[in-house]
Amino acid sequence: MKRDLRQWRRLANVVVMFALLLVFTRTAAAQGEQPEVNALDTVWVLVGAFLVFFMQAGFGFLEAGFVRSKNVVNIMAENFMDTTIATLGFIFFGFGLMFGTGNAFFGKEWFFLRGIPEVFPGTTLPTYAFFFFQFAFCAAGGAIASGMMAERTNFKADMLYSIVTSSLIYPVFGHWVWGGGWLAQLGYVDFAGSSVVHIVGACIGLAGTLMLGKRRDKVFGPSIRGHSIPLAALGTFILWFGWFGFNPASVLSAEPFKISHVVITTDFAATTGAISAIFLSYYFTRKWDVSMAFNGALGGLVAITGGALFVTPMSALVIGAIAGGIAYFGVQLMEKLRIDDPVGAFPVHGMNGMFGILAVGIWGTDGLGLLSGGGFTQLGIQALGIVACIAWAFPMAMGLFYLTKRTIGLRVSPEVEATGLDFPQHGLESYPEFDGIELRGIQVRDWGVDVPAPAPAADRGQLLAGAGD
Amino acid sequence: MKRDLRQWRRLANVVVMFALLLVFTRTAAAQGEQPEVNALDTVWVLVGAFLVFFMQAGFGFLEAGFVRSKNVVNIMAENFMDTTIATLGFIFFGFGLMFGTGNAFFGKEWFFLRGIPEVFPGTTLPTYAFFFFQFAFCAAGGAIASGMMAERTNFKADMLYSIVTSSLIYPVFGHWVWGGGWLAQLGYVDFAGSSVVHIVGACIGLAGTLMLGKRRDKVFGPSIRGHSIPLAALGTFILWFGWFGFNPASVLSAEPFKISHVVITTDFAATTGAISAIFLSYYFTRKWDVSMAFNGALGGLVAITGGALFVTPMSALVIGAIAGGIAYFGVQLMEKLRIDDPVGAFPVHGMNGMFGILAVGIWGTDGLGLLSGGGFTQLGIQALGIVACIAWAFPMAMGLFYLTKRTIGLRVSPEVEATGLDFPQHGLESYPEFDGIELRGIQVRDWGVDVPAPAPAADRGQLLAGAGD
Amino acid sequence: MKRDLRQWRRLANVVVMFALLLVFTRTAAAQGEQPEVNALDTVWVLVGAFLVFFMQAGFGFLEAGFVRSKNVVNIMAENFMDTTIATLGFIFFGFGLMFGTGNAFFGKEWFFLRGIPEVFPGTTLPTYAFFFFQFAFCAAGGAIASGMMAERTNFKADMLYSIVTSSLIYPVFGHWVWGGGWLAQLGYVDFAGSSVVHIVGACIGLAGTLMLGKRRDKVFGPSIRGHSIPLAALGTFILWFGWFGFNPASVLSAEPFKISHVVITTDFAATTGAISAIFLSYYFTRKWDVSMAFNGALGGLVAITGGALFVTPMSALVIGAIAGGIAYFGVQLMEKLRIDDPVGAFPVHGMNGMFGILAVGIWGTDGLGLLSGGGFTQLGIQALGIVACIAWAFPMAMGLFYLTKRTIGLRVSPEVEATGLDFPQHGLESYPEFDGIELRGIQVRDWGVDVPAPAPAADRGQLLAGAGD
Repeated sequence: MKRDLRQWRRLANVVVMFALLLVFTRTAAAQGEQPEVNALDTVWVLVGAFLVFFMQAGFGFLEAGFVRSKNVVNIMAENFMDTTIATLGFIFFGFGLMFGTGNAFFGKEWFFLRGIPEVFPGTTLPTYAFFFFQFAFCAAGGAIASGMMAERTNFKADMLYSIVTSSLIYPVFGHWVWGGGWLAQLGYVDFAGSSVVHIVGACIGLAGTLMLGKRRDKVFGPSIRGHSIPLAALGTFILWFGWFGFNPASVLSAEPFKISHVVITTDFAATTGAISAIFLSYYFTRKWDVSMAFNGALGGLVAITGGALFVTPMSALVIGAIAGGIAYFGVQLMEKLRIDDPVGAFPVHGMNGMFGILAVGIWGTDGLGLLSGGGFTQLGIQALGIVACIAWAFPMAMGLFYLTKRTIGLRVSPEVEATGLDFPQHGLESYPEFDGIELRGIQVRDWGVDVPAPAPAADRGQLLAGAGD
Repeated sequence: MKRDLRQWRRLANVVVMFALLLVFTRTAAAQGEQPEVNALDTVWVLVGAFLVFFMQAGFGFLEAGFVRSKNVVNIMAENFMDTTIATLGFIFFGFGLMFGTGNAFFGKEWFFLRGIPEVFPGTTLPTYAFFFFQFAFCAAGGAIASGMMAERTNFKADMLYSIVTSSLIYPVFGHWVWGGGWLAQLGYVDFAGSSVVHIVGACIGLAGTLMLGKRRDKVFGPSIRGHSIPLAALGTFILWFGWFGFNPASVLSAEPFKISHVVITTDFAATTGAISAIFLSYYFTRKWDVSMAFNGALGGLVAITGGALFVTPMSALVIGAIAGGIAYFGVQLMEKLRIDDPVGAFPVHGMNGMFGILAVGIWGTDGLGLLSGGGFTQLGIQALGIVACIAWAFPMAMGLFYLTKRTIGLRVSPEVEATGLDFPQHGLESYPEFDGIELRGIQVRDWGVDVPAPAPAADRGQLLAGAGD
Repeated sequence: MKRDLRQWRRLANVVVMFALLLVFTRTAAAQGEQPEVNALDTVWVLVGAFLVFFMQAGFGFLEAGFVRSKNVVNIMAENFMDTTIATLGFIFFGFGLMFGTGNAFFGKEWFFLRGIPEVFPGTTLPTYAFFFFQFAFCAAGGAIASGMMAERTNFKADMLYSIVTSSLIYPVFGHWVWGGGWLAQLGYVDFAGSSVVHIVGACIGLAGTLMLGKRRDKVFGPSIRGHSIPLAALGTFILWFGWFGFNPASVLSAEPFKISHVVITTDFAATTGAISAIFLSYYFTRKWDVSMAFNGALGGLVAITGGALFVTPMSALVIGAIAGGIAYFGVQLMEKLRIDDPVGAFPVHGMNGMFGILAVGIWGTDGLGLLSGGGFTQLGIQALGIVACIAWAFPMAMGLFYLTKRTIGLRVSPEVEATGLDFPQHGLESYPEFDGIELRGIQVRDWGVDVPAPAPAADRGQLLAGAGD
């Protein structure tokens, strides 16, 4: 115990020292010698970036599958437009704040892509290739939040947090970790974004769902069932497929041993994540709940993201198995805490994001993790990074959503929520030829939840006027 | 004004001179020195080709989402079979007509792939790799037309135009632009097919929809709503994903700066296309119509295709924004012109194809476009290319559809159209367990359109006899 | 005839000689000189592996589209969990049995991935990359079987055969062909798995469906219609797309001429497969049955898999056309034989797998096949391989399923089958807001099949207790 304390104190000293130092120094991490551009590395990273881009569809379908049919247009619109709005935010401010030379806290150049070099410093990639890969990561952050805020958020508010996330919240924390900022200088390790993408996204989503409050139909305990398992399955498969871009291309070169290693650890963690979650579900409920397997696989993927290059394949199996458990029990914890997270995104991205960051300090090879003799310093730095991430992203998001609430409105009206957001906000129905049970005014079966019948057709005209606002 | 006129006259002289010269000369563009084959270039182009191939699914789902459930089997069948029939057409005649050495108007060798060289002249690619990439482009042309002719076209006629498009209409214009033909020799620029693929496809579709006439349920103004937003979203995401093959692999090598540039311009134009279309929709209707965002993104992609390598990323943002507007207002224009284009394909592919070709003459860098000091000559050549494209593809398609009408029949019977094409022509229903509203004889909600109830089940047996013909 | 006989006798001698020899010798095929790892080859094979991995989604959606909505969760769960369980089986035993040095029948090292070399012998790939590519093939085997056993198999039994397939049945035959085993030493050719993946998977599925018996609602002749053509189309498109990894990456290097050749033959066979199947359907029924086109394309893909590198593109067109016919008539044969194969998997994977293996001995170039002067020896060896494959996989699977039946139970109860497996076994409904016709107690339309109404809601509670077991 004493030795532990001493280690923590030593860590604290290091932190204070660095914090004082770094505020007043300029980051120069990206300044080293300029290697030649490499065509194969570029091809690898671009193909990876395409896969990460396609993950936006994965998030969209996963979330669409897990919401009710009356909100499917809304959730698809949110994920689709998040992709586009994040592009603008990242072009205008995000990329510069995250990767530009600046201080320990943010970059100060390359806004509106002005003055970017041809080859990105420290890589063998054209800056445009590097930019596109990084933008795709940035877009994923916003997509995570949208799931937690589903079925009740004003679409304007959705777009507003997409732009703020991509131009401010995401890139500033990204600078700390990947842009040569203070966490990077402390030796904090987040290989492909367990914290940069997933904890940040989950914090924004958590702030959103807390500020919004629960859906009016939500009764804690039994969940409102998503309207389509095939769509959720499609989303999960696309996400897993896309993760083979997310992690392996994060090597930023086509070094064959490294990329193969990352492919294997990524796949293994998803595997045991799915297996542990569905077996837990069977153990406790006697049902093979495949939606739990989906979340378990995604939880495993999130958890391995932080250290995919730095843990062995066998460790990845273990990390995935634990991550599946976190995804499973995390959903129940959210119910107990009475936080309405419609698609189970916080356990998958938030809790497993944190676990993934800590996992580097436990299973990391070559002295990085406890189990390879690394001591608690690295683990402490990892924990510090998690705290820093939450301390940055959560209050920022709370502030943003508070302002949103006071101005354009964060939540739709109870009438719009009852009808579903699709028609009032988007003028569309997801399946106009098929009346879902809810639209027919029938109560949802088997869940004992009393769902008020939606406004009859006659009233829907009234809902139209201004409901898109 | 005077100076403009003089430029136009000079251009006209050039045109006439070339026209006379070229008819009597053989194209020899592909004859230069034979470079070695390059493995990385081959991998890049093949991966790109796989993505373009996958776009056939994208077209299929986009169109399926935008039609009614009673015609979903038909539209999926059309897009699936178009992929296969285009292969045959391109093997037998298309590839030879398009890329074989010949005259200024068509190639004269390589029919049935006979006598093709091992390495495609002027590239570092095996001819088989080049062929496969080009076939995937060719298939896209037919897929575009199918959307405009949806919900009423005899399936035999669908297959007939697929074979004629791929073996004649597409490759001849392709020869003019990419096969060393007269437009290529004039200096006409169509980087990845704004005209070769998109205007050609849109002209064929336009001829089809004009020859067919409107769907009997169609009332201009309010549109008939598609049956599934998730399918349309899936199609759009796949198309955008596939476009990262379409444009970047059109560099035909893995030159890192060029491919990264094209990735960026492609993505940026799609981004602002989606944003401008959905904001226009909100401005005019107070609804965030995500189906407009889908068409806007696709419009941006079509528009950037012509010059993706030759415009700056910032120009791509502008081109996309304008393209989104064209997609939005184009749909309304089609309604005003009383042309029944069920999925909005003409604004996306036709109008934005033209805009994309002109955009090269406006935003093209290094003296190619007006804004970089290029003068009107290039813009004139670009305009000439558009005129040539329409003058070739539209009458050819009109002739084809006229002959089709007089022989095997272009349009299904009113009874089949009312029932939906799926059962009479394909013997299948898209969702046999779920009766859509139409099949239940209920009028489509909220659109004020009076839809006749389909033939009752008893009569459907009669419809069966011979309806597949 | 006499000469034929003599050739067969010579072949038999060879077989016996080898059989005796090989049982007592160690395989050393993988021992040659160790080439350097190659980054481009690794990238190519990994990208191919991602595509093959994505095929799991393709199998899932194809099968989901072809079953009834009440069993969609079950079939998605089966395909999703097969992916994960196959990973474990292949890590623990499969990879070692298949590729480890051993005897003519199985490998004896590398279990639990212990002791694997950094670079896989005989390739330029890191072993991890090679492992991942091979695992993705292994997973496909289980996915094939799941389709044939759909709508009535206990989920526990599904998972059990996934683990046995991936850790024993698949890798042992794989060792014979690709691991330097006795078939490899005889000169048997299966380029990318017509037998290793497809016949093996089909044999396991056939054993399963025979041991299970038909679905209780099944009446031979008219089939029970799948619930969603769009899902089936999605599955088919993903499978075709994924096959561009399956075959071209099986070259195991990025040799540009070889990979381009394989891309072309793969695509061509799918093309004529689809065309011949849909035209046969039209010829016999006057309906353009696109579900036949899906199966025809897949049949063509399976058939070309055995010899994609060793037949000409023109032969591929012929092989595909025949394969489409096999897929078409095969479905009818299964009905005649009164074998209930819900998704038509045996004609596609089993019959066309056999045809694909024989096709190498007929159309193989450079003296491999009859038509290039190869004689009957190679064809005999190919036939022997088919016999060996069936003789290994089918009895093993029969034994497995017999044991399953006697222990945990192979088939669900009649009540669960009537209700559909989704709710009793998984606690989920695929589309909880949309009551399919069956759940509303209405008979399936147009097929003259009398479907018993499912248990009313009150009884469903009882079904819940223990039904997941």
